[in-house]
Amino acid sequence: MAETADKKDILRGGQFLVKETACEDVFTPEDFNEEQKMMKETVKEFVDREIVPHKERFEHKDYALTEEVMRKAGELGLLGIAVPEEYDGLGMGFVSTMLVCDYISGATGSIATAFGAHTGIGTMPITLYGTEEQKRKYVPKLATGEWFGAYCLTEPGAGSDANSGKTKAELSSDGKTYKINGQKMWISNAGFCNVFIVFARIEDDKNITGFIVENDPSNGISLGEEEKKLGIHSSSTRQVFFNDTVVPVENMLAGRGEGFKIAMNALNVGRIKLAAACLDAQRRVIDMGVKYANERVQFKTPIAKFGAIKSKLAEMATNAYASESASYRAAKNIEDRIAIRLDSGASHSEAELKGVEEYAIECSILKVAASEDMQNCADEGIQIFGGMGFSADAPMEAAWRDARISRIYEGTNEINRMLAVGMLVKKAMKGHVDLLNPAMAVGEELTGIPSFDTPDYSEVLSEEKAMVAKLKKVFLMVAGSAIQKYGPELEEHQQLLMAASDILIEIYMAESTILRTEKNVKRFGEDAQKEQIAMAQLYLYHAVDIITQKAKEGIVSFAEGDEQRMMLMGLKRFTKYQNQPNVIALRNLIAEKVTSENTYPF
Amino acid sequence: MAETADKKDILRGGQFLVKETACEDVFTPEDFNEEQKMMKETVKEFVDREIVPHKERFEHKDYALTEEVMRKAGELGLLGIAVPEEYDGLGMGFVSTMLVCDYISGATGSIATAFGAHTGIGTMPITLYGTEEQKRKYVPKLATGEWFGAYCLTEPGAGSDANSGKTKAELSSDGKTYKINGQKMWISNAGFCNVFIVFARIEDDKNITGFIVENDPSNGISLGEEEKKLGIHSSSTRQVFFNDTVVPVENMLAGRGEGFKIAMNALNVGRIKLAAACLDAQRRVIDMGVKYANERVQFKTPIAKFGAIKSKLAEMATNAYASESASYRAAKNIEDRIAIRLDSGASHSEAELKGVEEYAIECSILKVAASEDMQNCADEGIQIFGGMGFSADAPMEAAWRDARISRIYEGTNEINRMLAVGMLVKKAMKGHVDLLNPAMAVGEELTGIPSFDTPDYSEVLSEEKAMVAKLKKVFLMVAGSAIQKYGPELEEHQQLLMAASDILIEIYMAESTILRTEKNVKRFGEDAQKEQIAMAQLYLYHAVDIITQKAKEGIVSFAEGDEQRMMLMGLKRFTKYQNQPNVIALRNLIAEKVTSENTYPF
Ligand SMILES: Cc1cc2nc3c(=O)[nH]c(=O)nc-3n(C[C@H](O)[C@H](O)[C@H](O)COP(=O)(O)OP(=O)(O)OC[C@H]3O[C@@H](n4cnc5c(N)ncnc54)[C@H](O)[C@@H]3O)c2cc1C
Ligand SMILES: Cc1cc2nc3c(=O)[nH]c(=O)nc-3n(C[C@H](O)[C@H](O)[C@H](O)COP(=O)(O)OP(=O)(O)OC[C@H]3O[C@@H](n4cnc5c(N)ncnc54)[C@H](O)[C@@H]3O)c2cc1C
Repeated sequence: MAETADKKDILRGGQFLVKETACEDVFTPEDFNEEQKMMKETVKEFVDREIVPHKERFEHKDYALTEEVMRKAGELGLLGIAVPEEYDGLGMGFVSTMLVCDYISGATGSIATAFGAHTGIGTMPITLYGTEEQKRKYVPKLATGEWFGAYCLTEPGAGSDANSGKTKAELSSDGKTYKINGQKMWISNAGFCNVFIVFARIEDDKNITGFIVENDPSNGISLGEEEKKLGIHSSSTRQVFFNDTVVPVENMLAGRGEGFKIAMNALNVGRIKLAAACLDAQRRVIDMGVKYANERVQFKTPIAKFGAIKSKLAEMATNAYASESASYRAAKNIEDRIAIRLDSGASHSEAELKGVEEYAIECSILKVAASEDMQNCADEGIQIFGGMGFSADAPMEAAWRDARISRIYEGTNEINRMLAVGMLVKKAMKGHVDLLNPAMAVGEELTGIPSFDTPDYSEVLSEEKAMVAKLKKVFLMVAGSAIQKYGPELEEHQQLLMAASDILIEIYMAESTILRTEKNVKRFGEDAQKEQIAMAQLYLYHAVDIITQKAKEGIVSFAEGDEQRMMLMGLKRFTKYQNQPNVIALRNLIAEKVTSENTYPF
Repeated sequence: MAETADKKDILRGGQFLVKETACEDVFTPEDFNEEQKMMKETVKEFVDREIVPHKERFEHKDYALTEEVMRKAGELGLLGIAVPEEYDGLGMGFVSTMLVCDYISGATGSIATAFGAHTGIGTMPITLYGTEEQKRKYVPKLATGEWFGAYCLTEPGAGSDANSGKTKAELSSDGKTYKINGQKMWISNAGFCNVFIVFARIEDDKNITGFIVENDPSNGISLGEEEKKLGIHSSSTRQVFFNDTVVPVENMLAGRGEGFKIAMNALNVGRIKLAAACLDAQRRVIDMGVKYANERVQFKTPIAKFGAIKSKLAEMATNAYASESASYRAAKNIEDRIAIRLDSGASHSEAELKGVEEYAIECSILKVAASEDMQNCADEGIQIFGGMGFSADAPMEAAWRDARISRIYEGTNEINRMLAVGMLVKKAMKGHVDLLNPAMAVGEELTGIPSFDTPDYSEVLSEEKAMVAKLKKVFLMVAGSAIQKYGPELEEHQQLLMAASDILIEIYMAESTILRTEKNVKRFGEDAQKEQIAMAQLYLYHAVDIITQKAKEGIVSFAEGDEQRMMLMGLKRFTKYQNQPNVIALRNLIAEKVTSENTYPF
């Protein structure tokens, strides 16, 4: 874990935007160590044995099966990956926890959700914020799957606005217990969990407070019916009612009024893990899609040979590859950051908390990008299957339905888009990321005379890297001027913020994809990576289009006349290719590989 | 019906691309006559009374309810709108048939499908190709809902490649009957229909032949179980097996080997009707979406006030408005074309057939555009509802699932995309649409010196109209060069064809939207149409982006060096705005209207 912890200038969260990253400094799935590779195989085998054969039962709301599989995952140690050994976990690094989350989530969203809710938001608040007693009492049980956890934040009137909940916690006159009253909604794992993390308000506190509440029906806890849902049919989702539920004061998490902070930090981890949970699901959809396309013959031709289908397979593979690249890059940054903190004497929980919080921007970016990639992947999966895609006897429709939840929970994608930019601006204000100077430099470049040199882009991916550097200037130009224009009122210009966020997201995803590929080209040679190079180019190409559109939209909304013209000129300059990529040829190359290997081969 | 039939130069199918259309020459929903308005109200009331209150039953596979509602629709005459009066129908014009299909399909895809399969592909082949005896025997029963029809084209091995079916029809030795053997798949209405249109092959004919087959289990006809499907849960979809099914020779439709032509022509009508079937569904989703957004409060604010939500509502409304505009424009073209044929002595069926066939390109365009608009609309509908969007107790998830089928049946959207361009090229070859001369003119313009005049765009929508004219040049430039380059082998360059098709689609949709708005501005004044103007501008803006991307993709795939540079320069010129629209402001304006009216108000 400590391999890179001694690096001094490891990138801070959000700094990717203003610093160039060397490809040697990114972690890639090709860097998995032996232990991680074994872990990956173990989890894949587990899924193929315990989940895949029962797909149909998962679609038929077999909640007991989910519990059973979770229990088995616990027996294998898979629920305790992130938990320190002293609390009966495996105490593995952040990358390994991502990896398990990735591969265990591929076959059904029901397990992805149950696993995420239990190991993430259900357990983490205790490992991270619990007292020693709380940890000793609860974490070993949760880490082994003897007990299951759930997380009660949302209420009928408090969703995105999580701090506005009405659930109350009232201190008893003897000061020994709190009495909790309120209604929680959409609680994953509610049907079989043993312990709830509950957020409630004490008196008229500004912020809510977190509590560990054991599930005990005799203590005023009751559940609503299972919600009828579009997808994740075997994930238990219920309302939870607390009616004079008595909780000992020792079960308060962190301090009074600290609940909102806990909730938000738990969500940071939840978000990057959710991105991981969208990875193997994409791989599996691509695998099933290409197998079908190779077998299905129409017009005397396997449909995999049609350009329309090749195009889909290539785009699906490219997005999966991109979301892998970015997810593991950020995961390793977090792992390294944790290691640095540990080295300088922080406790495990302190180190972990700060490590993840540092990359909260990246966590939001990944949540949005990976969930949308997954949705598109399943959507094209259906389309490849034609009429069979619409059949519940074929695998695609469930993948599509299950994918839909990832754009809603752990903060909707709208909220995460706004958070990503919002947090970046805050970091800039605090001086943690220097946006001002780079933005000013871009401003000067805009008014200066552009260079007419023709750069040498003969080296592989060099034009792409130069493009990413220019795209960063686009963000700085747009966001910088917007901040100047609106100051703190920028918050009210949500459409502009959303546009800026899309630019940010595309930059991070494209850069991560290119860096992973560059690193692998250096190690394995250009020839061995030609499809990966094509994917990096294809991803970037779309990123340039999206960024051009969003930047234009933003610029025209707040700049007029000469200023607008100057910025639009800058935009043109910063998005200009020297060599226009032939995306149709790129897609063909990628699709050839996918179809000839008859699976997602990257 | 004959109002415009005397117009000499009514636009031929596909000609929109090379001719300018005056706004006075397009029909718009604002042109509905009194009869049509009444019809619309009747159908809406029917849906609100007979379908909406039973939404839940429709989600729970209540096939009998579908049959019951269809029966009631028959009693009201709604199944016979398109059927001539002599066969007990209402004999209304094409626009009215579109309108009924539009408004009856809004509340559930189950009824949309049952209605479409019955009145369209289930009945039309007989009204259009039947002999007088066949029509007299079957059509009145189908027009009144005494009987129901289904359409058996698809087989396990023959979907997109519809002419490859293995179902056989063998003539008896006495020449009086055919014996049909084979397996049909995905047959809508199979569970309750009385008559099947069945396509089968006689001997080793190149093309299949159509038959009218009465549903009689004692005649070797058996059904598979109801398919388990992603959506349209109360639409009956089954396999149909024919085992030595005896059919009198009189029941052959048109001639031997004419089946493929029948199938394709039935699909033309089916496609434009399917576009209609995606319209009220969009309106209803928008209506429910805005009502929810106005009521749901987070952060002490109705979410409708957040830019992120405004943006969604504006885009949803704009796409619905665009698909309405284009659907009714084409519908009226078809109606007029039919009237011209009737005037010149053609029979009803001949006139109708040729009228629709003429606009087969537009039918494919509309099928693709409206089905994708509907899908996006429902997708954003879910997102507006947040967690509730994922609940089966809220209306959005069913809309989303139901929408998914429209991109698959009546020809997948890939097949329709390729057809649209393919048919256009064929028309050009046959001299029905002159693409060559306009393409050559564009070629000359490319090599000539561009005009540096600043056009006067002070009149409302004038820049938009000029832009559409330029976008047509983009299509001519890209498609023209591609044809030159590849000749008949163009067919094998599917990615290029798909890109060209997207350009074509966007041009038709944008132009229709602008023309509708222009016409209404002239009648009702600019002030009364300011949101419609904004929608036309917003739609066009996205169209320009899509066209830019797709054209670039195409050009770079087949042109190199100077040729590529010249075409990319042309592309830039043809997609350049004089005044960059402020799309954020446009969206805000549109959203204000939608939220203040608390419904889809256009
Ligand atoms: C299957 C499922 C499982 C879940 N599991 C859990 C769980 O285990 N524990 C738990 O506590 N919660 C859980 N949730 C709740 C989930 O986190 C919330 O649904 C989510 O946070 C959105 O909140 P909401 O549903 O109230 O939507 P709302 O907040 O009402 O959002 C509605 C719409 O408004 C938008 N919006 C809201 N505020 C703003 C704003 N300020 N600016 C712009 N747009 C805004 C949203 O993006 C969305 O589009 C679950 C939900 C589901 C559906
Ligand atoms: C709910 C439902 C109801 C239906 N109702 C009816 C009905 O009433 N009657 C009836 O006859 N049929 C019906 N169908 C069948 C429907 O028309 C077919 O499913 C559809 O035409 C696609 O055929 P397929 O399923 O065989 O897909 P395939 O043809 O196998 O297509 C698979 C994929 O390959 C692509 N593809 C195929 N050929 C090409 C090509 N040449 N170039 C590029 N891409 C290609 C397709 O676009 C698709 O993405 C229904 C289907 C469903 C799901």
